Amino acid sequence: MLSLNWLKLYFCTMNHIQEYQTTFLAHLDNYVKERHPKNLYDPVNYILILGGKRLRPVLTLLAADCFGIDYKRALDAALSVEVFHNFSLVHDDIMDDAPLRRGKETVHEKWDTNTGILSGDVMLIMAYQLFENYKPETFQSLAKLFSKTATEVCEGQQYDVDFETRTDVTIDEYLKMIEYKTAVLVGAAMQMGAIVADAKVEDQKGIYDFGKYLGIAFQLQDDYLDAFGNPETFGKQVGGDIIENKKTYLYLKALEFASEDQRNKLIEEFNTQPTNNKEKVENVKRIFTDTGAKAATKEAVEMYTEKAFSLLKLLNVSEEKKIVLKQFGLGLMTRNV
Amino acid sequence: MLSLNWLKLYFCTMNHIQEYQTTFLAHLDNYVKERHPKNLYDPVNYILILGGKRLRPVLTLLAADCFGIDYKRALDAALSVEVFHNFSLVHDDIMDDAPLRRGKETVHEKWDTNTGILSGDVMLIMAYQLFENYKPETFQSLAKLFSKTATEVCEGQQYDVDFETRTDVTIDEYLKMIEYKTAVLVGAAMQMGAIVADAKVEDQKGIYDFGKYLGIAFQLQDDYLDAFGNPETFGKQVGGDIIENKKTYLYLKALEFASEDQRNKLIEEFNTQPTNNKEKVENVKRIFTDTGAKAATKEAVEMYTEKAFSLLKLLNVSEEKKIVLKQFGLGLMTRNV
Repeated sequence: MLSLNWLKLYFCTMNHIQEYQTTFLAHLDNYVKERHPKNLYDPVNYILILGGKRLRPVLTLLAADCFGIDYKRALDAALSVEVFHNFSLVHDDIMDDAPLRRGKETVHEKWDTNTGILSGDVMLIMAYQLFENYKPETFQSLAKLFSKTATEVCEGQQYDVDFETRTDVTIDEYLKMIEYKTAVLVGAAMQMGAIVADAKVEDQKGIYDFGKYLGIAFQLQDDYLDAFGNPETFGKQVGGDIIENKKTYLYLKALEFASEDQRNKLIEEFNTQPTNNKEKVENVKRIFTDTGAKAATKEAVEMYTEKAFSLLKLLNVSEEKKIVLKQFGLGLMTRNV
Repeated sequence: MLSLNWLKLYFCTMNHIQEYQTTFLAHLDNYVKERHPKNLYDPVNYILILGGKRLRPVLTLLAADCFGIDYKRALDAALSVEVFHNFSLVHDDIMDDAPLRRGKETVHEKWDTNTGILSGDVMLIMAYQLFENYKPETFQSLAKLFSKTATEVCEGQQYDVDFETRTDVTIDEYLKMIEYKTAVLVGAAMQMGAIVADAKVEDQKGIYDFGKYLGIAFQLQDDYLDAFGNPETFGKQVGGDIIENKKTYLYLKALEFASEDQRNKLIEEFNTQPTNNKEKVENVKRIFTDTGAKAATKEAVEMYTEKAFSLLKLLNVSEEKKIVLKQFGLGLMTRNV
């Protein structure tokens, strides 16, 4: 049973997170305004107010708070992370030919591909401009981290594209891909809060790794939930990755553990595109379970979460704030299972 | 007749320019290396070594030299300008569906559109990273100017796209479009040299405007040469803009000066797409000449060149260097007429 103290702390954490979120949304709202040429900036505003959980900017504010400054000083850095994240969504949606984003038309669908390219480009520049109000040393640290991270996000996207046509992707390669494509931005979001707070380099590195490992755990959890999540609470179609023959962690682990028979069966399922996918999804899920890939994925999620939490010990952050960080991490990991 | 002194100075200038160019090309060559994932970076290397006049980076080095430092200290800033310029070519070529660039396949033709988008994105980031070796204050100045300029280049591209479907574009709007799309990067290239040289803010502003006005003159000259250039020395097909019904300075000025008859004739020509374009080109050129648009464009080129040169008086730069700047400007303006 949770003690009263834990319960109090839990609600206190949620209050904190909610305050970051509300303040961030007000800051975003203030930033989104009519700019000319409209055909360039309307799509920027459209994608920025389309919604989303605003996880990354909240993490920037939380990190700034943890390292002892008024978190509001990190609002521009938080906004930069969100603008960059949305830039990557606009360009990725073109590349994936995705019609919908957060249930609404994607930018290139609502306008056209050229608009998506150019509006995305200007967002990438806007993300850098959001650092301009910080003093030169802080500006340089933020921009350097941002460039390194943005480069890795592009590289991760390229690896993801390359993997589609490769049949020899290893678990290590897959982990590197999700680290680059997803996790480094979570780490960078937190380190940016630490940079604005002038935290020590070791603490910056620590909070970056904390975010990065949580990001990896989060993505592996996403792979897991895509197959084994509760259809009523999971946001996307359960089995979507299987229908699209995606080489997720579950798939790669299943191949690793499979008997020859299971292996052939799995490869065969991934080479078919049936009109009714229900049976395919069931068959593949059975192989994921029988081979032990399901359990291994769950373990990997826990391992990366633990890895993240173990880093907290070394951080120069109050015990109270460490619990907030842990709560937030647990909140991410226990969603929708 | 040119005096011997002028002749000596002329060759001296050319030697300078050639030295900047050679040193820049060596720096570029050192920068272009195999990076992974190859599908992301091979297109980057391809476009960077495709050639081009390297005018912008040479201007950065020239400006640094003018403000009294070893121009080699500006090599990374110069390279940043060149990487950005090539980023914009890759994305513009996708938007224009252009098959060729400098006589070779464009990136999206040689690879595909998605590769063009993602490789372009990473080039924009690489351009920022090239400032990282400068000290924080210089870094921030360079990155701020870069972001402002890059934003304007995107806006200029958007105005250009918007103008294609508008029939009420004014001369002022056209001038703003070419200023943003082309001229600000020439100005910024020069200011970056001044920033690296720690030049005074007034001098930075002066050299920026010098470059900007030269850039406008250069673009208007391009409009002029596209119709009236010597086919044997002009790099592109003479009459190309007319065949594509482009609303250039010549076209807008012709509309402004035209009698009702000439106006109707011009609009009619721009609404036809004949199989044999020779007659169309001749007819339109006659209207450009008869209305006085040809002469007005020539005057505008001279006016902007003069405007650029008049700014030199105020610069804290040696008289010798001012002559080099002027020579370079004249060299740009007297090409292929």
